[in-house]
Amino acid sequence: MNIDKILKELTLEEKASLCSGSDFWHTEEIKRLDIPSIMVSDGPHGLRKMRDDTDNPNEAIKAVCFPCACALACSFDRKLLTTLGKALGEECQAEDVSVILGPGCNIKRSPLCGRNFEYFSEDPYLASQLATAHIKGVQSKGVGTSLKHFAMNNQETRRMSYSANVDERTFHEIYLSAFETPVKEAKPWTVMCSYNRINGEYSSQNKLLLTDILRNEWGYDGLVVSDWGAVDDRPLGVAAGLDLEMPTSNGKNDELIIEAVNNGSLSMKDLDKAVRNVLTLIQKAEDGYATATKWDKEKQHELAGKIESECAVLLKNDDKILPLDKSAKIAFIGEFADKPRYQGGGSSHINSFKVTSALEAVKGMDNITYAQGFVTDRDETVDELLDEAVELAKNSDVAVIFAGLPESFESEGFDRKHMRMPDCQLKLIDEVAKVNENVVIVLHNGSAVEMPFADKVKGILEMYLGGQNIGTAEKALLFGEANPSGKLAETFPEKLSHNPSYLNFPGNMDDVDYTEGIFVGYRYYDEKGIKPLFPFGHGLSYTTFEYSNLTVSENEIKDDKTLTVMVDVTNTGDRDGMEIVQLYVSDKESSVRRPVRELKGFEKLFLKAGETKKAVFHLDKRSFAYYEPDIHDWFVEYGEFIIEAGSSSRDIRLSTSVYVSSDTKLPVHFTLNTTCGEINSIPEGRAMFEDILSKIDCGFGDTASDDLGASAKEMMEAMIRDMPLRTLVTFTNVPDITRAKMSEMVENLNEMLAEK
Amino acid sequence: MNIDKILKELTLEEKASLCSGSDFWHTEEIKRLDIPSIMVSDGPHGLRKMRDDTDNPNEAIKAVCFPCACALACSFDRKLLTTLGKALGEECQAEDVSVILGPGCNIKRSPLCGRNFEYFSEDPYLASQLATAHIKGVQSKGVGTSLKHFAMNNQETRRMSYSANVDERTFHEIYLSAFETPVKEAKPWTVMCSYNRINGEYSSQNKLLLTDILRNEWGYDGLVVSDWGAVDDRPLGVAAGLDLEMPTSNGKNDELIIEAVNNGSLSMKDLDKAVRNVLTLIQKAEDGYATATKWDKEKQHELAGKIESECAVLLKNDDKILPLDKSAKIAFIGEFADKPRYQGGGSSHINSFKVTSALEAVKGMDNITYAQGFVTDRDETVDELLDEAVELAKNSDVAVIFAGLPESFESEGFDRKHMRMPDCQLKLIDEVAKVNENVVIVLHNGSAVEMPFADKVKGILEMYLGGQNIGTAEKALLFGEANPSGKLAETFPEKLSHNPSYLNFPGNMDDVDYTEGIFVGYRYYDEKGIKPLFPFGHGLSYTTFEYSNLTVSENEIKDDKTLTVMVDVTNTGDRDGMEIVQLYVSDKESSVRRPVRELKGFEKLFLKAGETKKAVFHLDKRSFAYYEPDIHDWFVEYGEFIIEAGSSSRDIRLSTSVYVSSDTKLPVHFTLNTTCGEINSIPEGRAMFEDILSKIDCGFGDTASDDLGASAKEMMEAMIRDMPLRTLVTFTNVPDITRAKMSEMVENLNEMLAEK
Repeated sequence: MNIDKILKELTLEEKASLCSGSDFWHTEEIKRLDIPSIMVSDGPHGLRKMRDDTDNPNEAIKAVCFPCACALACSFDRKLLTTLGKALGEECQAEDVSVILGPGCNIKRSPLCGRNFEYFSEDPYLASQLATAHIKGVQSKGVGTSLKHFAMNNQETRRMSYSANVDERTFHEIYLSAFETPVKEAKPWTVMCSYNRINGEYSSQNKLLLTDILRNEWGYDGLVVSDWGAVDDRPLGVAAGLDLEMPTSNGKNDELIIEAVNNGSLSMKDLDKAVRNVLTLIQKAEDGYATATKWDKEKQHELAGKIESECAVLLKNDDKILPLDKSAKIAFIGEFADKPRYQGGGSSHINSFKVTSALEAVKGMDNITYAQGFVTDRDETVDELLDEAVELAKNSDVAVIFAGLPESFESEGFDRKHMRMPDCQLKLIDEVAKVNENVVIVLHNGSAVEMPFADKVKGILEMYLGGQNIGTAEKALLFGEANPSGKLAETFPEKLSHNPSYLNFPGNMDDVDYTEGIFVGYRYYDEKGIKPLFPFGHGLSYTTFEYSNLTVSENEIKDDKTLTVMVDVTNTGDRDGMEIVQLYVSDKESSVRRPVRELKGFEKLFLKAGETKKAVFHLDKRSFAYYEPDIHDWFVEYGEFIIEAGSSSRDIRLSTSVYVSSDTKLPVHFTLNTTCGEINSIPEGRAMFEDILSKIDCGFGDTASDDLGASAKEMMEAMIRDMPLRTLVTFTNVPDITRAKMSEMVENLNEMLAEK
Repeated sequence: MNIDKILKELTLEEKASLCSGSDFWHTEEIKRLDIPSIMVSDGPHGLRKMRDDTDNPNEAIKAVCFPCACALACSFDRKLLTTLGKALGEECQAEDVSVILGPGCNIKRSPLCGRNFEYFSEDPYLASQLATAHIKGVQSKGVGTSLKHFAMNNQETRRMSYSANVDERTFHEIYLSAFETPVKEAKPWTVMCSYNRINGEYSSQNKLLLTDILRNEWGYDGLVVSDWGAVDDRPLGVAAGLDLEMPTSNGKNDELIIEAVNNGSLSMKDLDKAVRNVLTLIQKAEDGYATATKWDKEKQHELAGKIESECAVLLKNDDKILPLDKSAKIAFIGEFADKPRYQGGGSSHINSFKVTSALEAVKGMDNITYAQGFVTDRDETVDELLDEAVELAKNSDVAVIFAGLPESFESEGFDRKHMRMPDCQLKLIDEVAKVNENVVIVLHNGSAVEMPFADKVKGILEMYLGGQNIGTAEKALLFGEANPSGKLAETFPEKLSHNPSYLNFPGNMDDVDYTEGIFVGYRYYDEKGIKPLFPFGHGLSYTTFEYSNLTVSENEIKDDKTLTVMVDVTNTGDRDGMEIVQLYVSDKESSVRRPVRELKGFEKLFLKAGETKKAVFHLDKRSFAYYEPDIHDWFVEYGEFIIEAGSSSRDIRLSTSVYVSSDTKLPVHFTLNTTCGEINSIPEGRAMFEDILSKIDCGFGDTASDDLGASAKEMMEAMIRDMPLRTLVTFTNVPDITRAKMSEMVENLNEMLAEK
């Protein structure tokens, strides 16, 4: 396609038409100029391509449901995400889908967000790394992705109207950060704008977001598509950088675009930019199109199970109850053993071609018996099922309860109201734990749950929503054919109210104030000294690991250089296993509030029993910087930074430190409200105001006098330190110290500093 | 004084001169017109009148130091505060002081605020009640008060420049609320504006604060004085409602006022308003002046001890270790037994005419021995002192440790950096607890402290800063001559990081964001489910109380009526005692976030052993209302309200409920971003949009279809509920549903509702 040429030939009407879809899943075709229509489909942990041979829009093709993002994130494994992405890319090629929507890399602000299962983490670095790997995998197959939901879509409640009210630092440091690396490094073909508003402005017409930050700061040159129905004022959106509206507006918004161009409120230049991006996407799709790609569903089913086995998190394993003895009398209890919950509802819902449950996976093992225990279509104890399960547990060596959240508890479209599991399941667990001391809970859920049973059971295996072959993974993990290696990508608080967003979730009508600021997830629990049930980064293994030799390549470094950090990890157990080594960084002393620690690196190492390997990390400016609104940029404050290697955010094994410096200086500007302490902190200020400062009398006596006690002196020094310059007019009884004179001196000081 | 006449005769220069003091403590005199100068002095738990026979401005007259507000508040006793106020009023009369500055009724947002000891509570209702009683007491003696620091002065750090950034609801519901009742009911002669800014504007020139709210909303007709040095732009201040600047500006601001009037930027009308208020104050002072008032210092010393004995809070009393057996071998340990810390530093610091320590109070009791244990001039263990104390404890039946915060730890002028006690004291407590299992801690501190020793000792008696006769109160309480009856007016958290303001205290340079909103103090701990060390309202007695017969005068009530609530309290122990009955109210279901419970009434009952009395409370609109920014007013949402009678905020003994209704309606205004759920919630909206709503197709299938599972249906219903009307253009594929048409319908609906 010669895009320049086409742009010249397109009529205004044709241009407008290209700015929205032709239906729910296709771009507009313009036959006259050989512009084809391309198809996009929902994802991202499988392909939800609508069948075109049926009228039921709910009928997607049969496909493979991989583990959802909530599970995938626990792998902390970039390669695994790329493998998954490649598989998805192949499916799309086989099914003639040009763009598979996703991945979603919104931050898990609250465990209640109904769509958390589609998102990776509460930590922006982890989310950004996994999204990058996912996108690279898909796009390596000539298929596009749509990084979503850009940005601040952290809840479902009133998602199409709420405003995420967030301060600039938090916006960049936590929420945008998750998107920035994928955009820069993986270059997704499309970015999907979110439904919500940010500080009052809809993402779909948010120039700051879609143009200033995304394109100008981050250098994005792909297409921005609306989330389905996210458009408010379409012409404003075009000007702000929203190229493609989906789904179709049935021509209604085309007309508004035409009208806007005609009346001059939208420039042709802006419209052309959008059209160029649409055409470029179509071109990429055409270029990427590969014929005769095969799609081996069975092989992908196997892959789904393999991936899940590397995602599951062993939260608790007292008395080494896991792995299970294959010859023991084992009771599988709970409907999820037979009919696992393995995916969430909404646009990511896959029409799985088959599902393997745990029961199916253990078929042939005669020592395993099953009782349904509870129902999932309502939260109501069925006495016969409960009794049967308890009876079975009583007569078994071990009771494995397959529990979790039923479908109706979490989905796209609404948020959870609480983070409890169904009462009927909790009751079952309680009753079983009373008759059998060897209880293992296997959890199926898309987001953190409260676990009132945590102290009553020996083992807890968190599977999350593990995809259609979850049962195979469960069998492998429970019986030690696979060794658990996932770590939590989110904090499990003891109770919902401990969550940082609790007081402001889901907001007051359309105002959602992100008042917890940067203290999201473990950043909050650490800072507030609140013990979580299970911390971020936590996950056990059937073997053990030791850390040694944490080293840094330099003791002092400039922020434009890269620091290499290495640590040795040894598998000290008698079983092969994988360890996720986590690298946390913190500023030892900072003039702004910063987290106790922040994840800035992770590596997953496979270690044979007894083996030692080195984990290697590269830390750059961003690893040490915070976002400084005064310069609208990231900034490293000079000083010592602590570097910690941990097996979880609360299991730090080794630490060291490095001094980091920067050539960037923050701007200084003094006013009459600058305090004496600030003036005194720079030599030029001290020199200029020395005489005046010596004349202060604030009514408590002479600081130099011995009459004054030590405490009173301390008090007066503090008072004077915090006195703004303007108050010296009052507190120095000297006629020629006036407000006008002080103003003049401040201006002189500012000029002097500016010249430096 | 004929103020109208004087106003006509005053020159501009004279008017300007009246708007600031003549020195640190006096108003300007104008001899020509017989306008005298009056004197104001610091307070408020004693008189800090500067001597005029010395040049040392730190030299106040000898006076009586009563317990500080931190202690007084624990009495929960309006009468006691009035008694104290009267005593202060008499002192002022005797000393020719016209206005005694205080009380301070800022909210204790953080335990770190250096001036917390001068403030009452974290709860606005409690603070407002006690300030009201204090003011009434003082002013009944013809002496004025200065209710301070109005408003949002909740920290010392950068107090003269920071901006308290607070939302409208929190501003009114928590922070202004504490001032509102004293202003309306006690009519303080003066209100003192605070140093800080509120949402960017200095209190000293904040028209919203000083005129719109204080005078227009609350009907205040007294004088507004600046905190000493709080003035920024003086002419702006005059216009905003700041009548009197203190201390003197040495004529410099007079000139700026004159200039502003001459150039028209300040109106003579505004200046006259200020001058009239100054003259009226002087008039009040003249009218109130009483000759030959006697001041019996010894009697007031006795009163100070009596008051303190009704303020101290018995936090812990395991095994009934208190009261002490008078014949036991008792060790008094700790410097505070000999030299008690009984007041704080700064403008409230009293030059006490005498001090009675606990050691002095027990003089003659041979069974009591003393060891200093630690020093207070530095935080350093002195081994000999420690060893001596441990040895003494070893050989005693009981060890009573007089501990707390040294002077240098808290004061006006700076905030604490942490809430720990000195390490040397903690070590002493630890060592003593190792050798003696009967340890009682007696605390001297102006604000909450962490207590790592709480589980290691049997008794904890919180004296706060208890005034110059603290020792007499300590003796009386320790030996059971008085029965502890105080309750905490603030939460003691387990650790500082649990405090609601922790992440934003003391702010980022001059920005202090009150992001915890209305969730201050117990409102936060309750809502967040964080267990405090000792909750708000907690305090033990040597006797026990039972609650019964909680009744309400009505089951349903309009918000313009008063509800009477009664509860019987019985002293079920064998000792006379006082119980503070606390009444908490909560909205069972609310469309805005409201606290778990809020204090709306309290009564302190004296009950002889075995006696039963009725506590009676009157609840009005304000007891049920929250502040609704949409109408800039308090609002009661119809529904059931829970009424709880408790012995503390976490020891609720009885509860009942009442339905409250209101004639006030919140305004409704629909837009294109109104959700379908909101439209459906009113009959007119439902009727108007019924047809359109029936045509929604959001791409997940037909909600009416049986093909769809229950969960998917729930999801779609939620999605549609939260869809803004504007999105129906997309999600109803009907040509005549356009944005323009939807706009028109919304306008019609608004008109229809407005006409109703």
